[in-house]
Amino acid sequence: MTPPPIEITSALLSEWLDALSRFSAEGPGVTRLAFDEHWCQAHRWLAARAADLGLAATADAAGNLFFHDPALVPAAPGSPVILVGSHLDSVASGGRFDGAYGVLSGLLVAAELRGRGTLPVVGLATCEEEESRFHGNLLGARSLLGLASAAELDALLDSDGVSWRRALESARLRGCATALAPGASPFTATFRAAMMIEPHIEQGPVLETERLGLGVVDRVAGYRRLRAILSGEARHSGTTPMPARRDALAAAAEMILAAETLAMENGPPALATAGSVRARPGLFNVVPGACELWLEVRHVELDGLARLLSELERRCKAIAARRGVGFAIEQVSSQAPAPLSPDLAAAAERLAEEQGIAHRRMASGAAHDAMVFARAGVPSLLVFVPSRRGISHSPEEFTDAGALWTGYHFVRDLAARLAAGGGTGVLRPVGP
Amino acid sequence: MTPPPIEITSALLSEWLDALSRFSAEGPGVTRLAFDEHWCQAHRWLAARAADLGLAATADAAGNLFFHDPALVPAAPGSPVILVGSHLDSVASGGRFDGAYGVLSGLLVAAELRGRGTLPVVGLATCEEEESRFHGNLLGARSLLGLASAAELDALLDSDGVSWRRALESARLRGCATALAPGASPFTATFRAAMMIEPHIEQGPVLETERLGLGVVDRVAGYRRLRAILSGEARHSGTTPMPARRDALAAAAEMILAAETLAMENGPPALATAGSVRARPGLFNVVPGACELWLEVRHVELDGLARLLSELERRCKAIAARRGVGFAIEQVSSQAPAPLSPDLAAAAERLAEEQGIAHRRMASGAAHDAMVFARAGVPSLLVFVPSRRGISHSPEEFTDAGALWTGYHFVRDLAARLAAGGGTGVLRPVGP
Repeated sequence: MTPPPIEITSALLSEWLDALSRFSAEGPGVTRLAFDEHWCQAHRWLAARAADLGLAATADAAGNLFFHDPALVPAAPGSPVILVGSHLDSVASGGRFDGAYGVLSGLLVAAELRGRGTLPVVGLATCEEEESRFHGNLLGARSLLGLASAAELDALLDSDGVSWRRALESARLRGCATALAPGASPFTATFRAAMMIEPHIEQGPVLETERLGLGVVDRVAGYRRLRAILSGEARHSGTTPMPARRDALAAAAEMILAAETLAMENGPPALATAGSVRARPGLFNVVPGACELWLEVRHVELDGLARLLSELERRCKAIAARRGVGFAIEQVSSQAPAPLSPDLAAAAERLAEEQGIAHRRMASGAAHDAMVFARAGVPSLLVFVPSRRGISHSPEEFTDAGALWTGYHFVRDLAARLAAGGGTGVLRPVGP
Repeated sequence: MTPPPIEITSALLSEWLDALSRFSAEGPGVTRLAFDEHWCQAHRWLAARAADLGLAATADAAGNLFFHDPALVPAAPGSPVILVGSHLDSVASGGRFDGAYGVLSGLLVAAELRGRGTLPVVGLATCEEEESRFHGNLLGARSLLGLASAAELDALLDSDGVSWRRALESARLRGCATALAPGASPFTATFRAAMMIEPHIEQGPVLETERLGLGVVDRVAGYRRLRAILSGEARHSGTTPMPARRDALAAAAEMILAAETLAMENGPPALATAGSVRARPGLFNVVPGACELWLEVRHVELDGLARLLSELERRCKAIAARRGVGFAIEQVSSQAPAPLSPDLAAAAERLAEEQGIAHRRMASGAAHDAMVFARAGVPSLLVFVPSRRGISHSPEEFTDAGALWTGYHFVRDLAARLAAGGGTGVLRPVGP
C-alpha cells in the first residue's frame, strides 16, 4: 500500500467541495449542466486532483470519469472493480453537495485504498444524472453499463436543440470524453463493476430529525406520474348558486387533499404529491370550468405503488362523480422501485454498528445512479449523510463538515473491507 | 297615442335579436366591443330601426343611444322620462341576448308607448357595460348620469393602448356619438331619468330551475375579491415524508374547499368562488413551496358580505397556521351591494300577479347598468327572463322566443302603468 502524497482530512474534503462548487454558471447556487463549459472545467480540475493524489483519471466515451491506480489498465474490462462515486452534473441553481460529495468521496477513497485489497477500488464521476439538460433517464450510469444506444445520441436534445451527440463532441474537444465506438452500441465498459457504492446527501429530513449519522439505503422508490383533466362548467360566479355549480377547481382541491390523506393513511414509505394545478379560465368571476392537475405517487415496492395508484384513481373518480365533473387521467411517466443489494446493506449495517455510528436502514425516495447499477445486476448500495432541514436542489443545501467526514470515513472502511474480501467479504463479517 | 308603423310581435323581437347579433367580430358567438366597427354598425342599424318605428334616435357624447318620441326635445334635460333599456356592447365570444334583449325591448317599448301616459318612456342603449374593452366600471350608465370625468377619457386604455377618448372620436366620426362638452365634466344628461327599468336575461339557472317566467330583481350583490399568497417549503417529493411537508398547494386546496363550504353553510344569497390557483414551482417532483389563490365572496347585503369575508379569512388563517404555511391576503377589488327600488319591485310583483305570470323576487349576482342608476338615486329595477341552463357570456346563451316575449310584454305593461301614473303610480296599484 502506497499512502497518498496528500494527507486526506476532513478539511481537505471541505476545501475541495468548495472548490468544485465554483465550477458553475452565474446565478445563485451551483448550475453545472452536463457537458457545458463549467462541467468541463470541473472535469479537468478533478483529473488534476487525481494526479495530485497519485491516481490516473480516465474518461469514457460518455464523459464518465474514473479515478484509479495507474497500474490498472482500463482497456481490460474483464477485471472487476468496486466503483465508489456519484454524478458531476447539478440541477440549475442547485446545492454544493448533491453529486459532488459522492464524486469527491470516490476520488479520495480510490487514493486511500490504492494498492490495498484483492479487488481494486475505483472512484467514479458519472457525467449526468439530474436530467436538467437532457431528459435521458440517468445517461451516465446507463452509458457506463452499455445500456445507452447510438439512437439516443441524436434523439436527445437540450432546450436549445443541441443533441447529446453534439454536446459530447464539444466535451471531447475539451478532453473530457473519448471517441464513440462505431455502430449501435457506442459505449463500452471501461471497467467491469463488481459492486457500486454511492455516498450521497439524504435530500430529506429523516436522518437529521432522528439524529442519525448514516442512512443505509437498501431500496430506491419508484413512482407513477399522472395528469388528470377535470371538466366542469364555466359559469358566472355571481349568478350561479352554489348547489348548481360543477366547479372543476373545487373538485381538484378535493383530489389534492385525497392524495395527501391517502399517503398519510398508508404511512411511510407511501408518498403522494400534487405538484401543479391550473384552472380555466382562471378569472375571479368565473366558476372554473376546467382544471389540469398533476399527481405523483411513490413507493418502494411495486405492489405498494400499484395499490396507491389504483386507490388514488378510485378516490378521484368518486369525487368527480359526486360533483358531476368529467375526469380523465393519463400516466405521463413512471419508474419501477429498485431494490439495492441486501448483502451490501447488511455489511454496511454491521460496520456502522461496529463503529458505533447511529444509523438506520432506509429507502431513497429520489432516483440515483446506484439504482441503475442495481437494475443491471451489480450489487449496489447508497449511503446517506444528513441534509440540514432536508433541503436539496437549492443553494441552501447543507451538510456540516463533521457529518460529511463521518460518511466518507465509513464508506472508505466499507470499501476497504469489501476490497479485502475480494468481493465475497460482503457476505460475512471481516475484521478491518 | 299613435300606433307604431310596424306591428310589434314576438317574431319581430326574435328577428331583430338575430339581426343585431350579426354585428360582431369574426369567431364564435357575439363579439361587439364598445366603439369598435361592429358596435358602430349596430348603433346605426338601431337608429334606422327607430326611424322605421316613427321614433327619433339621439346619441350623447359617450355614444349612449336614446329612442324617443320625436316631439321630445333631448336638449331639455329638466323634463323627466322613464328609461327602459340595457347595453349595446358584448364580451368577447358572448351570447345573443345579454344586453341586446334589453336594448331592443327599450326600443320597442318606446315605440309602443309613444305619446301615452304623462311620463314619456324612452328606450336606451348604453354604450358600455361589460368592461371587455375598457376597465371603466360601467362607462355607459356613469357617463349618462354625469358620473364620468374628463380624466377618464385619457386614463382608460384598451389592450392595444387606445384611449377611451380616441375610441369615442372614431365612433363620433361614424355618427355614433356627439361632441364632448369642454371642461372636467364632458358628459351632460340628455334626458333626466325619473326611473330606469332594465330587462335582461338572468345569466343564472334559478328561473329555469324553478319554472318561473320572470325575476323581479330588487338587489344587486356586491363582492370582495382577494388574492392570497401562501408560502410553504419547496421540497423533493421523493425524499420529504408527508408529516415533514409544508405544502402550499395542499393548504390552498383546503382553502378552496373552505370557501365553498362557507357559502353552502350560509346558504343563498352567499356565494364564494376560488377562480384561480397557481403553484410554484409547479413540477411533478417538488412539493409546492408557494401558491397564489384568487378568492371572491358575494352577498346582497353589506353586513352579509363583511361577515363572509371575515369568516373566510379566519378559516384560511387557521388552515395556514395548522399547516405551518405563511399566509398573506390582499383585497384586489370590491363592489358594494346595491339595493334597487323597493317601490318599483312591489309594483312589478303586483303586475306579475295580476297577469298570472309565475315569478319571484330575487337578487342579481352580476353587476348591471340599473345598479349605477340606483346608486345615483334613480328608482331602478331589473326584470329577468330565464336563461337556458344558466349559461351566459357564451355562444350557447339562449332564451326561447316565448320567454323573451313574456318578459317584453310585462316590461311594456309595467312601463305603461308607471307612465300613466306620472311616476307616482309606482307607489299604489293603478288599473291598466
